[in-house]
Amino acid sequence: MTRYKLTIEYDGGGFVGWQRQATGPSIQAALEAAFKSFCGEAVTVWGAGRTDAGVHALGQVAHVDIAKKTTANTVREAVNHYLKPQRLALLKVEEADPHFHARTSAKARLYRYRIVNRRAPLAVEQGHAWHIPYALDAHKMHEAAQVLLGKHDFSTFRASLCQAKSPVKTLDQLDVIRDGETIDIHARARSFLHHQVRNIVGTLSLVGRGKWSKADVKRALDAADRTKGGPTAPPDGLFLVEVRY
Amino acid sequence: MTRYKLTIEYDGGGFVGWQRQATGPSIQAALEAAFKSFCGEAVTVWGAGRTDAGVHALGQVAHVDIAKKTTANTVREAVNHYLKPQRLALLKVEEADPHFHARTSAKARLYRYRIVNRRAPLAVEQGHAWHIPYALDAHKMHEAAQVLLGKHDFSTFRASLCQAKSPVKTLDQLDVIRDGETIDIHARARSFLHHQVRNIVGTLSLVGRGKWSKADVKRALDAADRTKGGPTAPPDGLFLVEVRY
Repeated sequence: MTRYKLTIEYDGGGFVGWQRQATGPSIQAALEAAFKSFCGEAVTVWGAGRTDAGVHALGQVAHVDIAKKTTANTVREAVNHYLKPQRLALLKVEEADPHFHARTSAKARLYRYRIVNRRAPLAVEQGHAWHIPYALDAHKMHEAAQVLLGKHDFSTFRASLCQAKSPVKTLDQLDVIRDGETIDIHARARSFLHHQVRNIVGTLSLVGRGKWSKADVKRALDAADRTKGGPTAPPDGLFLVEVRY
Repeated sequence: MTRYKLTIEYDGGGFVGWQRQATGPSIQAALEAAFKSFCGEAVTVWGAGRTDAGVHALGQVAHVDIAKKTTANTVREAVNHYLKPQRLALLKVEEADPHFHARTSAKARLYRYRIVNRRAPLAVEQGHAWHIPYALDAHKMHEAAQVLLGKHDFSTFRASLCQAKSPVKTLDQLDVIRDGETIDIHARARSFLHHQVRNIVGTLSLVGRGKWSKADVKRALDAADRTKGGPTAPPDGLFLVEVRY
């Protein structure tokens, strides 16, 4: 068996999420089917992050073991062939150490959440950003975001379905940057709770709108109670950008 | 009657192009239908550029005359409401001088053509770029592009269906810029021939691939003959970015 590390891009719009589910097409199942077509083996593809329905990836990472003697380049070309016309592609395939594990070996995950802040609905970026038609103060959002940095109990920003053993996580970066009508939120941590980025972005949108202050965000965090947090931002704006090892 | 200047964004993927056609939904017809719903008037929307099927716009400009007493903001909000869920939106609506004409008053049109140059198929940017899987030398493409600047007979890059009176146009800018795997080609002229940008990009792709030299591009231009030019690049990568007055 050879272990391969896969770097993957997808548009989450047509998928029920990363994880195999009975309710519709998942990224994981689509990859496994393409590997089956390529090498005839019933493989399991292990992802670094289980992105939700509608969430995109520019650099998801996964690993897979296959028995077939081949090369990394052949895997990439052949599997990409079988993935068409789905909006899912292998950007890079590398032979990996047998001890490499996409999920447990990861040292950092980087997400980008994109808001488009303007009156007009989205045409070109539809499905790839959260459209917020009222004015947001990105500077205030960035300032408030800084109270979330470091090691905390993030229960306030945790989905009820979250399966993590502990709600304690360390957030290493949370930058809010405006460029014209686009507001990008860059989040980095070793790992995240389920919906953590989307719940943080929803909360920061209240700050941008002037409804919440930085102190309100701190109070919500300290409450360690999901009902004290802001709304969950839609999946459309969320991209898993990179996984570091 | 009040004349309004409209700045428009659309994803050309679901449309047969700007112009009203019997064969399917056009941007022009969609806008006219939305105006009809808003003010009950059978208006004509005049566009600055008649983009083809699959070509996108980040800043198309058009004008329209309506009798209904209203405000520019009301027009934008109401027409955007009626345009939903089409991937077509009014970014800006301004009252215009009765002599303003979106097509004939235009001083410059700016297009961007996006190539994604990598082995892997496009997932997130599918439909918004031309995927070229073999290596391109963007520097050589830029150098060759410079021979096309200025006033020339552009018959070599003109679609056979082109209705312009003369094949002589003045190209003011043609920059080829690589950023990672993305190659953007920025083209600016007072006006363009039908398919001119796509035929130029197709020709430059031959230079990027090493099949053509800068001298070959010059010879093709001088031939003033479409059969001497390169292929037509697909519509997916083309965006009408701005129209200047």
